[in-house]
Amino acid sequence: MTDFSATRAAFHIPDGVIYLDGNSLGPLPKTAARRVSEVVTQEWGDHLIKGWNDCGWMDMPMRLGDRIGRLIGAEPGHVVVGDTLSIKVFQALAAAIKLNPDRRVILSDTGNFPSDLYMAEGLISLLGPDYDLRLVAPEDVSAAITEEIAVTLITEVDYRTGRKHDMAALTKKARAHGVVTVWDLAHSAGAIPVDLRGVGADFAVGCTYKYLNGGPGAPAFIYVSPDHAEKALPALSGWLGHDSPFAFDLGYRAGAGVSRMRVGTPPIVQMAALEAALDIWDGVDLQDVRNRSIDLSERFVAGVEAHCPGLVLASPRDPAQRGSQVSFRFEHGYAAMQALIANGVIGDFRAPDMMRFGFAPLYLDEDDIDAAVDTLRRVITDRLWETPEFQRKKAVT
Amino acid sequence: MTDFSATRAAFHIPDGVIYLDGNSLGPLPKTAARRVSEVVTQEWGDHLIKGWNDCGWMDMPMRLGDRIGRLIGAEPGHVVVGDTLSIKVFQALAAAIKLNPDRRVILSDTGNFPSDLYMAEGLISLLGPDYDLRLVAPEDVSAAITEEIAVTLITEVDYRTGRKHDMAALTKKARAHGVVTVWDLAHSAGAIPVDLRGVGADFAVGCTYKYLNGGPGAPAFIYVSPDHAEKALPALSGWLGHDSPFAFDLGYRAGAGVSRMRVGTPPIVQMAALEAALDIWDGVDLQDVRNRSIDLSERFVAGVEAHCPGLVLASPRDPAQRGSQVSFRFEHGYAAMQALIANGVIGDFRAPDMMRFGFAPLYLDEDDIDAAVDTLRRVITDRLWETPEFQRKKAVT
Repeated sequence: MTDFSATRAAFHIPDGVIYLDGNSLGPLPKTAARRVSEVVTQEWGDHLIKGWNDCGWMDMPMRLGDRIGRLIGAEPGHVVVGDTLSIKVFQALAAAIKLNPDRRVILSDTGNFPSDLYMAEGLISLLGPDYDLRLVAPEDVSAAITEEIAVTLITEVDYRTGRKHDMAALTKKARAHGVVTVWDLAHSAGAIPVDLRGVGADFAVGCTYKYLNGGPGAPAFIYVSPDHAEKALPALSGWLGHDSPFAFDLGYRAGAGVSRMRVGTPPIVQMAALEAALDIWDGVDLQDVRNRSIDLSERFVAGVEAHCPGLVLASPRDPAQRGSQVSFRFEHGYAAMQALIANGVIGDFRAPDMMRFGFAPLYLDEDDIDAAVDTLRRVITDRLWETPEFQRKKAVT
Repeated sequence: MTDFSATRAAFHIPDGVIYLDGNSLGPLPKTAARRVSEVVTQEWGDHLIKGWNDCGWMDMPMRLGDRIGRLIGAEPGHVVVGDTLSIKVFQALAAAIKLNPDRRVILSDTGNFPSDLYMAEGLISLLGPDYDLRLVAPEDVSAAITEEIAVTLITEVDYRTGRKHDMAALTKKARAHGVVTVWDLAHSAGAIPVDLRGVGADFAVGCTYKYLNGGPGAPAFIYVSPDHAEKALPALSGWLGHDSPFAFDLGYRAGAGVSRMRVGTPPIVQMAALEAALDIWDGVDLQDVRNRSIDLSERFVAGVEAHCPGLVLASPRDPAQRGSQVSFRFEHGYAAMQALIANGVIGDFRAPDMMRFGFAPLYLDEDDIDAAVDTLRRVITDRLWETPEFQRKKAVT
């Protein structure tokens, strides 16, 4: 059983703050500052160039990849860390589409995070006009999986509403139709149980600064299934993905398995924070996280619906259909969120009218939820965003 | 006049170390640890998601880009920081080749850093078999610039020998033949004066962990000239390069100028170290750096040639033809470099037989050079790599 009091104690949450935005940027693990400082002062400072070997820097992307792999049901040695999520989307897509050379359509949905779609557009701008990005409504993805589709590019959990796709069912259908799957786990990794191996996913990508708490701009990760690991080519074929980077051959020769998805020199200082964050996950069971996330989010939904008139649930009502966040539409959502934040409860806002709240059980408990609901109730019922005090406060910050 | 005693005092160089590998990884700026710690503990820790606005995180890529721009002769607002150098090579190439839609050949040379060539290969794997990467010897680049060439991809300073291309002459010839230029400044930025605007370069890319001392895995930069900034498309079209990232449009619309070369969430912790490193460059004149680099490297070459039999200069003898490093071929180069490092002088080795030494005037002076020569002399004349003491030491480290 996961010890949530221990995980909660592992984070720095500022006094007076209830943090419901870990789905955007996770909070600071207390050990991260020390770990980053060691890497900067002792490793970089004293080992200089030798740090690449002496301090294990060169292996960090695969080492951290494996630690993330455990949280998403990946086979050991099949996840590597690096770059940003958008870059990893591009790499996965570019490799996936070449594995289906007779097909030309990338299928995605209008609930996907826009950067995924932009990267697909960019890839198609290179591949040529025969290729196409087809967008359907999230609920129509399954029906749109046909023999015409080369690759699906689907984000499991919708960034705005938390609506969750049925990853197992969609992957199964894709496989049955010869479609290669690319799953974006941005709002899944560290939030809900993911079983890449179990569902038979082909590629997956994700970021580490949300529920994994790796820090602002922490690197992304990519998974390539054992079926494809020795065949998939990265297109972004950098020297650290080369079979023998320090041979400095003039021609590219892909490295073993997912290591070929490495590109350039990895961000060691940034990864030090991520490494400290991943320590907290040792001993955490994702099913425990999921159960608790559902308890917390159900408590929040019930509280808001009872006490905050005007807010309309935008997320699926059934928690099994959601990730680890809920969103409410509210006419004055932007202003209300500003006022809520000014009163110590941090969520965020997505245009045009969506107030978004994430529930990370590693550092949130029932008392936080009750206090957050109570503050939100005050904001809404007293229309705090209209008060002179708030307007003044806003003017000076 | 640049105050080199002040710049020297700004770095942490471990006791007993003479660091001649700043061309690979620059040493730690003393203020970097504090700056990184502030970003981790205060900004991330206390501002959480609000750090993106409160702490200026979102603007860092352009802000740091401008500070680098000053060092490479770029117009303000035309350099942005992010990703790795390999990714920036891909972006520049992908944009450049589309600006020359009737041509199909990327020209590079066999002295280029291999990752640049690998990225060009990867791009071509997407563009299709009509496209070609043509490699010539470095001395044949000028002759190979013809109306057939779409883009040149040239690294100004050779990573092994320090041999320097004539950037002004090659750019001029390229322009005369309608060829778009992509310059890789990996071994130029912070090492020698670069005048992107003056020579009329189209695109430039570079890294910040070498002479700019941004730390292991510090991000890269990209320059797009004002001529192209509103036309060049990044292909790696991520949300932070979108004209309006937080509108979350489903379709990509390139942002203003070079900001469209941003891709995903930038590495804030890593950039904090770079920011501290760039502070040191305030008040540094690159022509002073160049003059002093030539003095130091000439002193080193003379010393080595006088005292280290068997070492053969692999770099151009004329310092005007070199960047800020020199290399020597030596039969026992690998073992000798290990022994040299064990004796406190850090250079590096490139197969098959090249001992490489970088000269960064910001933290090196004449005494360092004399001491380095003296240590190298002892290593070579006493064949220190063969001594039992060294073999034992090697076995335990």
